[in-house]
Amino acid sequence: MRGIPEDLVLRRFYFRWERALQAVLPEPGWHALGAISGGCDSVVLARLLLESARRGRGRLTLAHIHHGLRPEADADEAFVRDLAAAWQVPVGVERVDARGHAERRGWSIEQAARILRLQALERMARAAGADVIVLGHQMDDQAETVLLRLLRGAGPRGLGGMRATRRLRGTAGSSPLRLVRPLLGFRRAEIRSFAARAGLQWTEDASNRDLAPLRNRIRQELIPQLQQLYNPRLVESLADAAGWQQRESEPVARAAARVYRRVRLSASAAAVELDAARLAREPAAIATRVLWRAYQTLAGRHAALGRRHARALLAMRRAASGGAPACVHLPGRVRARFTRERIVFEPHEPRPGRQETA
Amino acid sequence: MRGIPEDLVLRRFYFRWERALQAVLPEPGWHALGAISGGCDSVVLARLLLESARRGRGRLTLAHIHHGLRPEADADEAFVRDLAAAWQVPVGVERVDARGHAERRGWSIEQAARILRLQALERMARAAGADVIVLGHQMDDQAETVLLRLLRGAGPRGLGGMRATRRLRGTAGSSPLRLVRPLLGFRRAEIRSFAARAGLQWTEDASNRDLAPLRNRIRQELIPQLQQLYNPRLVESLADAAGWQQRESEPVARAAARVYRRVRLSASAAAVELDAARLAREPAAIATRVLWRAYQTLAGRHAALGRRHARALLAMRRAASGGAPACVHLPGRVRARFTRERIVFEPHEPRPGRQETA
Repeated sequence: MRGIPEDLVLRRFYFRWERALQAVLPEPGWHALGAISGGCDSVVLARLLLESARRGRGRLTLAHIHHGLRPEADADEAFVRDLAAAWQVPVGVERVDARGHAERRGWSIEQAARILRLQALERMARAAGADVIVLGHQMDDQAETVLLRLLRGAGPRGLGGMRATRRLRGTAGSSPLRLVRPLLGFRRAEIRSFAARAGLQWTEDASNRDLAPLRNRIRQELIPQLQQLYNPRLVESLADAAGWQQRESEPVARAAARVYRRVRLSASAAAVELDAARLAREPAAIATRVLWRAYQTLAGRHAALGRRHARALLAMRRAASGGAPACVHLPGRVRARFTRERIVFEPHEPRPGRQETA
Repeated sequence: MRGIPEDLVLRRFYFRWERALQAVLPEPGWHALGAISGGCDSVVLARLLLESARRGRGRLTLAHIHHGLRPEADADEAFVRDLAAAWQVPVGVERVDARGHAERRGWSIEQAARILRLQALERMARAAGADVIVLGHQMDDQAETVLLRLLRGAGPRGLGGMRATRRLRGTAGSSPLRLVRPLLGFRRAEIRSFAARAGLQWTEDASNRDLAPLRNRIRQELIPQLQQLYNPRLVESLADAAGWQQRESEPVARAAARVYRRVRLSASAAAVELDAARLAREPAAIATRVLWRAYQTLAGRHAALGRRHARALLAMRRAASGGAPACVHLPGRVRARFTRERIVFEPHEPRPGRQETA
């Protein structure tokens, strides 16, 4: 593939891609940081971004994260460096210590890897002057995410799956940065057959090797079975449900952002204090998001709070408004203290010998 | 079982029931119309309502709907009449013609039966002077509903499952009426073991016989399998997700009710007219609910609109605002016409020989 592909199938795919990209990046002149693991989806993403860049729509830098978890990680890095050299695209590589971070902050290894990866991409984007981070998640990933969360138990925010576009609030003085997923409308098989047809190479399992066993089983067993027995278009249906869900949550999220500004008494890296009495008047859907936001101010914007902890926070809010001071320990070494007047989120160190789970 | 049961297990179950009932009917002095098919859940519901009534919390009338679909329906009716006589509770029976209604209005038989059942219960409640209709759906029903809708493809409204409490808007001059489901917090197996322990009798399959094949397979095969492989507390998780979903949708539903009053130009049994330009400014989540509400004014408040039709309405709204008049035929012999200025919902008769599906 060079310039616009001659093959009609490839050309059609390319046009679909251009539409999908414009839906998340309407203005030309972008500078994209394309995340590339070396797996098929990410190689196709990089190739498509490169085509768009060559047609003058914007500029591309690639970014590879080395999680330091497996021996193959070195080979993946070398593969990506070679590919970028062959394509004459600048590439940055960052090493992160997922295992160490998991131990230090009390996350699971998967969560630590996810958080560090997103933080590294954000740093690299700001360093390169990129205005958008582009991730290669596709429709099958989305369907698996929704199903996984539903099976484990999830709130509406979880059922919305991954966002096609997300604004990353900047620190003071930094330029705005977005995170987009232009491949969410494409099936995994379509991407793979495009890759084969376009003569691309990839490292066979770079993205699957990091899959948790539960997600792997959902991908390999459950979804094929449900497709066969219940709905041949299950993946499309689940992805579509996620989209509806996101739109449904928009007004709630906007209202929660307003309430957060109103109930926040103070916020710094050392502590966030909320007005308990004011928050008590808000409905559960909004209060949950406000508490989540306060939590992320300390734990980092990529820290996720499961339903179990969200529920604990809501219960504490009720208990404290009845006059019983309470405290919840949250993943990532954060603690929430509740009194009748205030809710305080603050860092905390676990007592020695006490094991905490994320 | 007579008065408060002596058995400690039964007594505990009864206390749990009282709490669940008070959550949906906080004020004593109610007059409940308890729906009873003759199946286990409905017999337990009737028995529990009777106990509460005997303890002076309210008054009970039973209601049985004969759908005229199967030969066993006569035996079910006789069983319910005998039970009510033995318990000395007044019982009303109404026959509905689900098959005829399905043919006349273009519904599927299941949908026609559901709509006629709810309409009959509403009529019977108003005739008896009851202020609340009580249905026997439990947690397993809720989980099946959520999973069924998710597999078929559903929007946020669908994923909220069945409401524990719902207000039925009255016609002018009629007193307010509610519909509640106090057993949503109970597992099917708990209800069944209570029934056996309390020495109750029921018609083995009265409620299962009406199950569509897809729901039956979800109940018999899929849920047990998912429980075993993914989450032993799956039913609780799904029911819980439905509850969160309902709370998430509350602000959207309230906003939609306000918007509906603002964009409605006129409304009668003959037609509902909406202001297209005003509706065009609303986000999809709210516009969908407004269109749904206009549709129900003509098709009846128990008429449900699937995602396929909801999506068609939204697409037409966009097309018409671009200047292309359009028309969508909806289940229950209703048509929506779109022009640049107006959206009109009105009854319509299909052209002879044209088959329409709900």
